[in-house]
Order: sequence, then structure tokens, then C-alpha cells
Amino acid sequence: MKLLNVDLGERSYVIHIGAGLLQEAGRLFAEKGIPHRSPLMIVTDRHVAKHHLAPLRQSLEAAGYRVCEAVVEPGEKTKSLDMLNSLVATALENGLDRHSTIVALGGGVVGDLAGFLAASYMRGIPFVQVPTTILAHDSSVGGKVAVNHALAKNIIGAFHQPLMVLYDTSTLSTLPEREVRAGLAELLKEGLIWNREFVHWFDEHAEALLALDADALREALYQGCKVKAHVVSQDEREGGLRAILNLGHTIGHALEAVAGYNELLHGEAIAIGMVGAAKLSIRLGYPEAETVYRETKRLLQKLGLSVSIPAHYDTEAIMSAMMHDKKFKEGKMVFVVSPEIGRVEIRSDIQPDWVREIIEQLKRED
Amino acid sequence: MKLLNVDLGERSYVIHIGAGLLQEAGRLFAEKGIPHRSPLMIVTDRHVAKHHLAPLRQSLEAAGYRVCEAVVEPGEKTKSLDMLNSLVATALENGLDRHSTIVALGGGVVGDLAGFLAASYMRGIPFVQVPTTILAHDSSVGGKVAVNHALAKNIIGAFHQPLMVLYDTSTLSTLPEREVRAGLAELLKEGLIWNREFVHWFDEHAEALLALDADALREALYQGCKVKAHVVSQDEREGGLRAILNLGHTIGHALEAVAGYNELLHGEAIAIGMVGAAKLSIRLGYPEAETVYRETKRLLQKLGLSVSIPAHYDTEAIMSAMMHDKKFKEGKMVFVVSPEIGRVEIRSDIQPDWVREIIEQLKRED
Ligand SMILES: NC(=O)c1ccc[n+]([C@@H]2O[C@H](COP(=O)([O-])OP(=O)(O)OC[C@H]3O[C@@H](n4cnc5c(N)ncnc54)[C@H](O)[C@@H]3O)[C@@H](O)[C@H]2O)c1
Ligand SMILES: NC(=O)c1ccc[n+]([C@@H]2O[C@H](COP(=O)([O-])OP(=O)(O)OC[C@H]3O[C@@H](n4cnc5c(N)ncnc54)[C@H](O)[C@@H]3O)[C@@H](O)[C@H]2O)c1
Ligand SMILES: [Zn+2]
Ligand SMILES: [Zn+2]
Repeated sequence: MKLLNVDLGERSYVIHIGAGLLQEAGRLFAEKGIPHRSPLMIVTDRHVAKHHLAPLRQSLEAAGYRVCEAVVEPGEKTKSLDMLNSLVATALENGLDRHSTIVALGGGVVGDLAGFLAASYMRGIPFVQVPTTILAHDSSVGGKVAVNHALAKNIIGAFHQPLMVLYDTSTLSTLPEREVRAGLAELLKEGLIWNREFVHWFDEHAEALLALDADALREALYQGCKVKAHVVSQDEREGGLRAILNLGHTIGHALEAVAGYNELLHGEAIAIGMVGAAKLSIRLGYPEAETVYRETKRLLQKLGLSVSIPAHYDTEAIMSAMMHDKKFKEGKMVFVVSPEIGRVEIRSDIQPDWVREIIEQLKRED
Repeated sequence: MKLLNVDLGERSYVIHIGAGLLQEAGRLFAEKGIPHRSPLMIVTDRHVAKHHLAPLRQSLEAAGYRVCEAVVEPGEKTKSLDMLNSLVATALENGLDRHSTIVALGGGVVGDLAGFLAASYMRGIPFVQVPTTILAHDSSVGGKVAVNHALAKNIIGAFHQPLMVLYDTSTLSTLPEREVRAGLAELLKEGLIWNREFVHWFDEHAEALLALDADALREALYQGCKVKAHVVSQDEREGGLRAILNLGHTIGHALEAVAGYNELLHGEAIAIGMVGAAKLSIRLGYPEAETVYRETKRLLQKLGLSVSIPAHYDTEAIMSAMMHDKKFKEGKMVFVVSPEIGRVEIRSDIQPDWVREIIEQLKRED
């Protein structure tokens, strides 16, 4: 098992990464001092519940906890105020109080929803993240929690740090292959923005990761969480540095919005976006940018991901989705670019026309 | 004008109290450094809008701010997730961003709702409280914001401190008389828990307060906010001391719940509750408790408030509402009691039977 500390003063917490952690949950909760007198509530989704709810529940009950559960429908639509309303009913009916802890068992959807429940129920109670996707290395660390509004994603939320994160790599064995590939794209991103050695390591272990080799996953999730944890501890409330985590996300979010959040997975969208950001870096004249572009593309393709924008996506629709993105400020575009592997810069002088051109090129990319 | 600092480290803020502050809002916003480049959003209710929205809006616009507004229906029902959802739509349609400020113009309903909007929109943006009721001296200070759930009041919320509070005593001239009396009960409570001199002053100035004399109001709101600000700065997140603010609230909340939140105003309910707490103090044998009881009752009656529970309220319904209250812990009842005027104690050894007896007595109180 690997341990990683997220350094946030009195809100610091530990990420546990390893195989078989669900079975250890009861012990770890008790060691963390989570009280037994108030009920716990596990929030999970139907896919995850099928495989992983029973072992987690058993482990907690064996350690003497009273446990109730809420199983939601999988998918982005579940991150809503309506679902929050129904989870609050479940919490009240089961007598959750200020000393209760919410347990988020699942991917980013469950983590964001259950996290916002924890942030707002009785004005904030503790929660534990138990991520079950690779992408959730990102969503489970850093304390950003939220639900969607019909008009905008993640627009209603809070900063609420978990008490701890239990990352059981065994749960990933049931994750659909497409989710694995997409999650690995986000994990690669952590290397591309901060850690050149991790990118080399990732290159060498791509097959092992795709095969869900336990040792490779533990190491990769550790390195990925480490980058995220480092950035977050420098900038808890997204004042500046945290923006570097958005490499590939300006184009990526726009693609997701145009596709209506069901065609492209988040990791698939940002994979294309990272290639776009590399192209923009070439345009900006960074000497190493060609290498960044070539390597980013090669690694993503090694993961079996597409790096081109589906031809039927309307360029102007993508552009206008970007203009509405929070990352667009006062007439100019803000972009995370990649001068070299393992380092990014935030540029706020990006001309919309350059981006339009790159979107067009990405439609012909192969 | 009177100024009061709420000391909360980097979340500290100033409460401005005086006549005519709505007209000064633009200047005060600019002095506080609230940026002009992002739109402001005023949230208010229909009653308040009729009298006070235009002057506030004009003052802000004259200072160069872009202002949008949302006028909600008055009443407790408005504090809901549905209303939050609709306010988020208004915010998005008007282009509110991270640098925007929400302005809560109204009583506690508007303050709690708009405050939770500010706490959760984009994971938190600034807000300014512009209270227009006497009761709002309580709700506008301390950062507790929330909406209701069908199953419980104030159960979904946050701690989110305002940037500043502008308390324009002139707005109180349009407040219905019943709201004035009820608000004064909560203001008297601040004296009863913390400041014996203020209770004497209150006694001498009760008529002036009921007549909405500007000087008397300014002084009373200043003293009331001062108690609240002091308690909150000692205990921002309700770990302990803050509970003393709940004098009269255990019985009061139960009465509100039994009445269905429309028969008794909050201040009317806690007025009865404070008399109940004084009776409980007598029962506990505090030597000064008789005086507390006599004075509390006399002062409340001087304000024109009833101190008896309407006879048709079912005692067992009141008891069971109390059992469901958050202040009920592990089989015993927690109560704020009044050993003497200006000082309270929190007792967690209260027998439900004593309380039942007092409820019965309060039905015959006159
Ligand atoms: N809070 C943050 O900082 C942050 C960061 C990135 C992304 N996010 C959010 O995360 C969400 C995406 O997260 P995600 O990719 O994990 O999606 P997800 O939670 O929707 O999971 C993807 C799919 O995999 C299924 N699944 C999850 N774990 C499984 C397992 N072990 N076995 C079988 N099936 C499993 C789910 O049921 C779902 O169908 C988005 O809503 C995004 O906004 C949040
Ligand atoms: N956040 C906290 O710490 C806290 C503390 C105490 C109470 N509260 C909340 O406050 C709410 C009660 O607050 P309230 O008593 O101010 O109620 P309110 O906001 O409902 O106002 C009472 C009535 O007076 C009207 N009104 C308000 N100002 C007016 C004015 N100047 N002129 C004419 N009409 C006016 C309103 O439209 C409403 O009809 C409750 O929801 C309670 O939960 C919160
Ligand atoms: Zn991402
Ligand atoms: Zn009150």
C-alpha cells in the first residue's frame, strides 16, 4: 500500500492507494477516529454497487459502524440539485447527524455529488472518498465538489476536503475498458504538466496499465495523485496555480459541451484537447513544442485513444462553447500550453483565430 | 452611522448601521474594492422590492456597477433548492462570474437563500447582506446560510461570511408591526444571554424601539449585532459557544414546527421559548431565576408579545418536535438556561418530563 499526504494545514488528509483497501475500510475509519455513534451513509451508483458495495459495507459493519446507503443512477445527469434533494431525504430518514460521515464510492460523478451532499448537509459534515475509476484520481483529490445546472456543468458546489481517500486498485478490474483508456489520458496529463520522469515511466508501462496490473496502477495513481495533491496544496481555492491542471481542458470541455456530454468521455475529450494545446504551443514558437506534440500524440495513441475531432462537430459551435467557458476572460482566451514535457505555462494572450485554425486541423488529425 | 467589526481573521468584515445607508451603497461597495467589471446581482423579495429595491439599485448604478436582480416570493417556502436552481439560472443568464457579488436585500429568508446562492455559485463568490428586518440582525451576521428541505428546516447550507453588512435602519419603517415586535424579541435575547446593561437600556427604550425611533434602533441593533458578532468570532463553525444564541429556541423551534411555520413568527415562538427557559431555570434551582423569569416576561409583554402557548397546540406534538430537533442528544435534552439576566448556561441533563410540565404551564401562562 502507498500513502500520500495532501498538505492543507488543518484540512490535511491521507490518500491510501493499494489493492484490497475496501476490506480494510472499517479498520481505517476507526483508526481515523470516525465516531461509531452516528450512522455512515455510502453513496454509490448502480454499476459500482453491483461489484463493490457489499464488501465495503461489510467491512464497515464488521468494525461496528451503522451503515445506510443510497444507490443512484450512473451518469452525469445524476449530478443535480434534484438528486441532492433526494439524498438529503435519505440522510434525514436514516438519522444522519453532524457526526456522521458520507462515503463516496464510485467515479467522479458519485464523488462530486456525495461530496456536495457532505459539504452542505447540516452546513457540512465529513466525507471519505473511495474512488473506483482512474479518472477519479483527479476528482477525489482536491476538495472540489459540485452538481450541474441545466445551463452549466459543475456550477453549484463547494470546496470541501475529504477526511481521507481510500483508493482500492482492485475495484478497477470491473471498470469498462473505454473508461480505463479515458482515465489514463487524465493520468498522463499529470505527468505532462509537472513530471517528465513520470511521462517516461508511463510510456514504458502503458501496456501494464491497460492490462490493469496492480503494481503499475498503484504506482501510476500514486504519481498522478501526487501531482494533483501538490498543486492543490499550493492553491486550495483555485486562485492561480491550480489552473495548470486544465491542460487540454479548454478544447476538451468545449467538445464535451458540443457532444452533449454523452458521446465523448471526459478523458477522450481532453486527450484531443492536449494535442490541440501542443499544437498551440508550436504556434507560439516554443523550441521544444514539436517534441511535446509528437510525444503527447504517440502516448495517447498507445493508450488506444483518438486524437482527432469527429468531423461532424461544428467548428463554430466548439468556438462558441469555449467563449462561454469560465476560462475565457475579457475578450482574450486563456490557455494552458506546453513549452516542454513536464512543464506548462498559462497564456492569456491567445487569439481566437489561432484556436479556430487548430480546431480545423484537429478534424483532419490522424 | 455606527461601525462594528466582526473579527474572523481573513474573513473579518464590518457591519455598518445607520439611517440612509441604501443611498450610500455604491460608495461603500467601491471603497470595499468590489470590482466593477463583473455584474452584481440583487436578490430580494416582492415586499421589500416595492419599497427598497430602486434606491439600492440606483446607488449601485450611479457608482458604475452593472446590476441585475431577482425578486422572489416572500416567505419561508422560498428558501428551497428549487429557488436556488432558478437563481442560478438568473445568475448565468446575466453573466455573473467569480468576481461578481450577490447582494441580499431583505429579511432572513432572503439573506439565507441569497447567502447560500453566493456560497455555492461557482463554489463560492462574495456577498453583501443588506438586512431589512429587525430579526435579520441575527441572520445577517455570522455566515450561516441555508435553504430548507421538505423534511427539515435549514438543513442544506454552508458557513459563508459576507463581505460586509449594510444595515439601513430607514428600511425598517415599512416593516409590518408584527414583524417589528417579533424581531425585538430576538434582539432582547442578545441582551438576556450576554449583556445585562443592554437589557436595562432595552427596558427604558422599548417604546422608542416600537415607534422605530432611528437613534434607538441604531443603538439596539448595534448592541444586538455586537453580541452576535462576539459569539460568532469565538466559535465560527458552531463548535460550542455559539449554542448560547439558542436561548428560547428549543421550545421555539418546536412551536414553529407544530404550527407549520405560518402561524407563529420566529420571534413570537422564541419569546414563549425564553419564558419556558426561565421556568426551567427556576426548576433547576438557580437563585436568580425567579427574577429572570419575571423580567423576561415583563419585557416581552411590554413589546406586546404573547408569552403563552396557544391552548390548541398538542403537548405531545411539541415534545416530539423537540426530540427531532438537532439539539436533542443521546436520550437527554440539551437546553440553554438563564441563571441570571445577561448570562446563560448550556445544560445537557434536562429530563423530558420537566419540559413537558413547563409546556403545560405555558399553555396557562398569562
Ligand atoms: N471534482 C473534481 O475535481 C473533478 C475533476 C475531474 C472530473 N470531475 C467530474 O468527474 C466526473 C467524471 O468522473 P468519472 O470519469 O469517474 O465518471 P463516472 O463516475 O460517471 O464513472 C464512469 C462510469 O464507470 C462506471 N464505474 C465507475 N467505477 C466502476 C467500476 N469500478 N466498475 C464498473 N463500473 C464502474 C460508472 O457507473 C459510470 O458508468 C464528471 O462529472 C466530472 O465533472 C470532477
Ligand atoms: N442565518 C442565520 O443565522 C439565521 C438566524 C435567524 C433566522 N434565520 C432565518 O431567517 C428567516 C426569518 O427572517 P425574517 O424574520 O427577517 O423573515 P423574512 O425574511 O421572511 O421577512 C419577514 C416578512 O417581512 C417582509 N419584509 C422584510 N423586510 C421588510 C421591510 N423593510 N418592509 C416591508 N416588509 C418587509 C418580508 O417580505 C416577509 O414577508 C428564517 O428563514 C430563519 O430560518 C437565519
Ligand atoms: Zn479533467
Ligand atoms: Zn432565532
